[in-house]
Amino acid sequence: MATTYLQENQDRFLTELIDWLRIPSVSADPKFHGDVMKAADYLKARFEEVGLDNVELCPTSGNPIVYGEKIVDASLPTVLVYGHYDVQPADPYELWDSPPFEPVIKDEKIYARGACDDKGQVYMHVKALEVMKQDGAFPCNIKVMIEGEEEIGSNNLAIFVRENKVKLKADVILISDTGMLANDQPSIEVGLRGLSYHEVEVTGPNRDLHSGLYGGAVANPINVLCKMIASLHDENNHITIPEFYDNVAVLSSEERAELNRVPHSDDEFKRSIGLPDVYGEKGYTTVERIGIRPTLDVNGIWGGYTGEGAKTVIASKAYAKISMRLVPNQTSEEITALFQKHFAAIAPSGVTVKVKPHHGGEPVVTPTDSVAYKAAADAMETTFGKRPIPTRGGGSIPIVAMFKSELGLDTVLLGFGLDSDAIHSPNEHYGVFNFLKGIETIPHFYRNYAAPCRHSG
Amino acid sequence: MATTYLQENQDRFLTELIDWLRIPSVSADPKFHGDVMKAADYLKARFEEVGLDNVELCPTSGNPIVYGEKIVDASLPTVLVYGHYDVQPADPYELWDSPPFEPVIKDEKIYARGACDDKGQVYMHVKALEVMKQDGAFPCNIKVMIEGEEEIGSNNLAIFVRENKVKLKADVILISDTGMLANDQPSIEVGLRGLSYHEVEVTGPNRDLHSGLYGGAVANPINVLCKMIASLHDENNHITIPEFYDNVAVLSSEERAELNRVPHSDDEFKRSIGLPDVYGEKGYTTVERIGIRPTLDVNGIWGGYTGEGAKTVIASKAYAKISMRLVPNQTSEEITALFQKHFAAIAPSGVTVKVKPHHGGEPVVTPTDSVAYKAAADAMETTFGKRPIPTRGGGSIPIVAMFKSELGLDTVLLGFGLDSDAIHSPNEHYGVFNFLKGIETIPHFYRNYAAPCRHSG
Repeated sequence: MATTYLQENQDRFLTELIDWLRIPSVSADPKFHGDVMKAADYLKARFEEVGLDNVELCPTSGNPIVYGEKIVDASLPTVLVYGHYDVQPADPYELWDSPPFEPVIKDEKIYARGACDDKGQVYMHVKALEVMKQDGAFPCNIKVMIEGEEEIGSNNLAIFVRENKVKLKADVILISDTGMLANDQPSIEVGLRGLSYHEVEVTGPNRDLHSGLYGGAVANPINVLCKMIASLHDENNHITIPEFYDNVAVLSSEERAELNRVPHSDDEFKRSIGLPDVYGEKGYTTVERIGIRPTLDVNGIWGGYTGEGAKTVIASKAYAKISMRLVPNQTSEEITALFQKHFAAIAPSGVTVKVKPHHGGEPVVTPTDSVAYKAAADAMETTFGKRPIPTRGGGSIPIVAMFKSELGLDTVLLGFGLDSDAIHSPNEHYGVFNFLKGIETIPHFYRNYAAPCRHSG
Repeated sequence: MATTYLQENQDRFLTELIDWLRIPSVSADPKFHGDVMKAADYLKARFEEVGLDNVELCPTSGNPIVYGEKIVDASLPTVLVYGHYDVQPADPYELWDSPPFEPVIKDEKIYARGACDDKGQVYMHVKALEVMKQDGAFPCNIKVMIEGEEEIGSNNLAIFVRENKVKLKADVILISDTGMLANDQPSIEVGLRGLSYHEVEVTGPNRDLHSGLYGGAVANPINVLCKMIASLHDENNHITIPEFYDNVAVLSSEERAELNRVPHSDDEFKRSIGLPDVYGEKGYTTVERIGIRPTLDVNGIWGGYTGEGAKTVIASKAYAKISMRLVPNQTSEEITALFQKHFAAIAPSGVTVKVKPHHGGEPVVTPTDSVAYKAAADAMETTFGKRPIPTRGGGSIPIVAMFKSELGLDTVLLGFGLDSDAIHSPNEHYGVFNFLKGIETIPHFYRNYAAPCRHSG
C-alpha cells in the first residue's frame, strides 16, 4: 500500500530533497545561474525516474521551465501541476543558524533556503508521483510545469503559457506553494488579493531651502505628502478614494460567518508580531480585514535630511511607495486609474505631484463548490482526519489570475506550509511532517478528482 | 578724510581680503585644521596692524578665538564685535565656476568660499578700524572676538564667554553676519526665530511584515506617522499642539504694518523658488509668516522600502525629523516639552512612539528704540542715502540669545550681505560694493553710538 511504501522510503525521500536543496538556485543573482540550471536538470531527472514522458527543459529568454507529462487516457481529466525550483536570495547569511545551502534536519524540520518555498513543496509532487507509480497507475492525466523565475516575477512564464496553450491543455491547475493554518487544522486558500502599486513624488520649491529663511511661507513637500497620505483613510480606516469600493464583492453574512470559523485569536496575532493592538477598517474582524477587504499601505517613504543629527532644510521633493491590495471584483487597471486621478486631485496648489504605477495583479477567488476543490478537501480530510477550512489569504499570486485568463483554468492551492516557516527570511524551514503529509495527500487528490470525472465522462 | 582714504586704499583692501580668502579655513573637516590656524594667525596680525592691543589667540578645546581690544577711555561705552573666520565646506567643488579657494573678482563680485560668510564681513571690520585709526582716534572702546567654529555649532564659544565675562564686558554686541534687502534698500535684522528640533520614531509590528499577509490588520507605522504629522496643522495651517501659541508675542497692527513696509512681492518670491503658489498660516502675509510666526516643518522622513521598484512590505518603524521655528516669547525648552507630550498623546494604540530632542535655540528680538540700533540705522542712512528698514529674518543665530543670557547684552545685526550671495552654496560671492560700503558705514556706527553715550555719560 501507498502508506507503507511512503514509510519505507521516507528517509530516502528526505535525502533526495536535501540533495536538491543543496543547489543554490537563486534566480535573482546572476552568479548563481549555473546552480539554477543544475537545479532544473536535477528536477528533470527525477521526473523521468518517476515515469513522466516528454520531460524537457523548455527554453525561455530566462531560466528554463521543466515540463513533463503522463497521458494515461485522453478521455480522463488532466491536472496541470505548477511550482517553481528557484529560491529567494539567502542574505543576510549571518542571521542563519546553519548555512542556507547546507540543509540540516533539526527538531523535525528541514532548515534550508527553499525548504518550503517552493522546492520542498515541489518535491512532494515528485515523490507523490513515485508513490502512485508504485501503487499501480496514475488515476488521471498529469502535466507538470515547474518554472525557475517565480522569485523574480515570472515574466517568462506568461509568454510560455500563451505560446503553449495546446501543450498545456488541462482541466485544473494544482499548486503547492501556500500554507495551511496548523498541522492539526488543515486549510485550503481560496482567495488571493490583487495589487496596485505606485510611486508618488511631491515637489515643492525648485531646490532645497533653509527652513529658517523660508519655513512657514512655502509648501513643505514632506508635510504635504503626509497630509495627502493621511487623507487616504477616514477616521474609520475606510479608504477615501472615490469609487474605490464600487466593485468590491460584498459577502453574505453566511459567507462572513464561514470565513470567521477559521481559528484565529487577536491576542495571539498581536503577540506574534509584537503589536499592542490590532488596527484596521471599522466593522471587520482581523480575518476579514486580511481576507476580503481591500487595503492601502505605504510601503516606503523618503525625503529631506535623513542622516545623523539635525539639518534645518525644507526639501524640494518627497517620495512614497503606496500599494493597494485588491479583492474581487476590483481590477488593478481600474484601481490604478482611480488612485492616479485622486492623488493628483488632492494635491494643494503649492506643489506638483507625479504618480508612477509600478505593477499590478488581479484578485482571485477559487470556487469551493468545484470538483477539484472537493477532491482536495476530501484528500486532506482523509490524511489529516479533519476537514480543511477554506481561507482567504491576503497575499497575491499573480500567476493564478494569469492561468485563469490565459488558459481559462481554476486553481486549487493545496499547500502544506505554515506561517512560521520563515519563507523569504533567514532560517527558512519545512516540517518533516508537512513534507511527508503532502506526499501522502496528493495521490488522494488525484484519485478523488479522477473518480467523479470518470463517472461523468 | 575717511572716504578719501578708503577710495585710495580700496584695491589693497580687496587684495588683502583675497589673500585671506585663499586660506581654506573649513572647520568641519579636520584635514583643513592647519589652514584654520593659518587664517586665525592672519587675522591676529591684521588686528595688530590696525592698532588693537592685547591681540591674542585664545585657546579653546577646539579652534582658537581671535581676541583684541582698544580701550581708549574707561568712561566711554564699549562695543564687542563678534564674527567668525571659519567657513563652510566648499563641496561640491564641481559646481563652482571658479575654484572656491582661488578668489576672483567678476562682475564686481568677489567669488570664494567665505567671501561673504563671514570672512568678507569680518574683514570690513578690520579695515574700518584702519580707516578710523587713520582718521584720528577710536570714538569708543572696541573689543573684537572672532571665533573659528561658527559653522560647526559654536560649542566652545559659549564656554569661552561664560569664563571671560570680565574681559568681554561691553555695552552692546555688533555683528556683521547677516544680510540686507538690496543695495538700494538697506535694512537691519531685528528679529531671529528660535528652534526646537526633534527626531521621532514610530514602531508598529516588531519586524517588517509582508503587506499582503498582514496589510489591513496592523498599524502601518508609515501611514500612522503621516497621519500624526498631518494632524499637527489644521486646515488653516495653524499648529495644533495645545498651548503652542500661548506665549507668542502678538504684534500691534502698527507693528505689523511697519513690518509689511518691507519691499516684497509674492510673485517674485514664487518665481525665485519655482513655486506655483505661496502657502502658509491663514491670516498672515508671507513676510509675517517668515518673520513673526512660529512654524513646524518636517526636515526629513524615512521608512520602509526606498530602493528601485516595488517591495510589498509593511515596515516595523518609520522616522521623521521635525523642527519648529520659534518667535518671542516662546522658549525652546517650553516648546520641546509641549511637542514631546503632544506627539506621544496623538499616537494611536496600535503603535509606540519615541521623541528625541536634538537641539534648540531661543528667538530674539533686538529693540529698535535703543541707542545702538539708532546708531546703526543712522550710519546706514548716511552712507546709503536711505533709511534702513528693520526686518525680521526667519533664521536662527543661537549665539545672539547666548550673548543676551550670558552677558546681558543686546546685539545689533549690521549685515551687508544679500540673499543672492549663495552662502553655504557653490559660487558664494560678496559684492565689492557691499564690502566697501560696510567699511564706510561701520565707523559712522561707532561715532553715532559714542556720541549720545558721551553726552549722557
